[in-house]
Amino acid sequence: MPELRKDPIVGRWVIISTDRAKRPTDFARENVKLKGGFCPFCYGNEGKTPPEIQAYRPGTNGGPTSQRDTPGWTVRVVPNKFPALGIEGMLNRQAEGMFDRMNGIGAHEVILDLKKDKRFKYILLFKNHGEAAGASLEHAHSQLIALPILPINVVQEIEGAKQYFLYKERCVFCDIIQQEIENGSRVVAENENFLTIAPYAPRFPFETWILPKQHESAFENSSSHMFENLAKALKTLLIKADRVLDNPPYNLVVHTSPAQDPTNDHYHWHIEFMPKLTKTAGFEWGTGFYINPTPPEEAAKFLREAEVEEAVGTGAR
Amino acid sequence: MPELRKDPIVGRWVIISTDRAKRPTDFARENVKLKGGFCPFCYGNEGKTPPEIQAYRPGTNGGPTSQRDTPGWTVRVVPNKFPALGIEGMLNRQAEGMFDRMNGIGAHEVILDLKKDKRFKYILLFKNHGEAAGASLEHAHSQLIALPILPINVVQEIEGAKQYFLYKERCVFCDIIQQEIENGSRVVAENENFLTIAPYAPRFPFETWILPKQHESAFENSSSHMFENLAKALKTLLIKADRVLDNPPYNLVVHTSPAQDPTNDHYHWHIEFMPKLTKTAGFEWGTGFYINPTPPEEAAKFLREAEVEEAVGTGAR
Repeated sequence: MPELRKDPIVGRWVIISTDRAKRPTDFARENVKLKGGFCPFCYGNEGKTPPEIQAYRPGTNGGPTSQRDTPGWTVRVVPNKFPALGIEGMLNRQAEGMFDRMNGIGAHEVILDLKKDKRFKYILLFKNHGEAAGASLEHAHSQLIALPILPINVVQEIEGAKQYFLYKERCVFCDIIQQEIENGSRVVAENENFLTIAPYAPRFPFETWILPKQHESAFENSSSHMFENLAKALKTLLIKADRVLDNPPYNLVVHTSPAQDPTNDHYHWHIEFMPKLTKTAGFEWGTGFYINPTPPEEAAKFLREAEVEEAVGTGAR
Repeated sequence: MPELRKDPIVGRWVIISTDRAKRPTDFARENVKLKGGFCPFCYGNEGKTPPEIQAYRPGTNGGPTSQRDTPGWTVRVVPNKFPALGIEGMLNRQAEGMFDRMNGIGAHEVILDLKKDKRFKYILLFKNHGEAAGASLEHAHSQLIALPILPINVVQEIEGAKQYFLYKERCVFCDIIQQEIENGSRVVAENENFLTIAPYAPRFPFETWILPKQHESAFENSSSHMFENLAKALKTLLIKADRVLDNPPYNLVVHTSPAQDPTNDHYHWHIEFMPKLTKTAGFEWGTGFYINPTPPEEAAKFLREAEVEEAVGTGAR
């Protein structure tokens, strides 16, 4: 008998196929392969992107750091060459008959500067890996986009968490963390600051969340010590996913509080990792109701048992 | 400047790229090709599906109609061989710690019988065409699934329509139909009973809706005369989409009222046609906020101007 499970945050039901559960090798798909060819994100091609907004440029042997838009960086932040939203202008919200529209104001920039801009309601950090996950460039990169509205999924998640808080006076994510640690069956990994789990009602096979164990409403409020442990938790998860699913395409999204409400009791920032192993079809598009062929307890077991000790720390990947 | 537009029903904003609009030939993708090989849905292979639930079997030259599960049919209804939900059993809704679950009760069957079963809250009719749209079999087929819950997207759409009705005392879809006919720029086609439009805030390039022009809350309440005109409207749209987009993969979903609330003033059934020309990426998954590179006015113009007169009525396609 398939099982219906409800996500306690947004109230979204999913169908979990418990009978004929799909194991990692049951997903027929291409893994992510490098095609080669010219890459504007590669070392030495700094002139092929718009000028950098920020870069980490460690000095060599204590010497001076390198110049802007030249090699010598370890991480580089550049504006999107084909931005979905423009930075200049007013929102100019207006009616068009019964319809509503506004100008597409937004930006790709560093978080702290963007938070000061009152036109922006939400700042989204995400990563697409592999063509099947919508990545247009192969070189590993993440994206940041500032939005002039609160997106509908964010509104739902925050409203769901608020409702729970009004009723229980506790954060729904904090309760999930406690229950998952006690239960153990959906835990993938854990370190000092972060818990990695398969959620109870995942939309996708091998969907995995990374949550800070202490309540924290916004990503950018975390300490540098926490970011170190977040990097470790993320690296551990990505190595495990590569081992179990053979370099899958994936989307990775940081869920955080709205830009103008960075500290609150009801919302708890986290990362959602979604490998793209199945295709979304008419049923899902019509309903928002997902059929997931892999129970999260089985996905968590595969990921939990994947060896990773040696790789983390050696700089592999 | 890109433009943000709000869907007046669910309140979902989308980004419309008005500057560098993508024309039909700008979408790099494979069109749907037939691979050949064995097909359980083809004439003569009736024994390879579960026994038929219903079939239209016209007699030849006034002679008797053919036997069940043999050739001689024009349309055949069979249960899904690998159902996502099972028909037998009780819902057995229960808690699992702080989480909720229930048994996966549901069915693939004919609408009128299913409506009598009080376990079912919603009946979804949909079609996936092409592998990129999630179709697992190439032979043209549609699907029907009865669900023990109201899916989250359906709840949102109905709630949005209810809010509008409470405020305006008019159906939001009826208002859209009137405004679109007056405006004309997003109209694709029109016949006696149906209007085909590109919606004001489409999630996908060339997304198209077919709506009954008179208020009707549920698909199955329509008259046989209306179904004839619906078939014509649908055929016209699919031929136009084939001409403009070269046999695109697509999802087609019937949006209708909940099974136990078939007649109401606020909801208006319709069909949503979604060609799959772009990939959904982390941004969309994280936000429910879609970037659409083709303004609906341009999509509607391409579809409106595509020739179709000769093909409709000749039985082509």
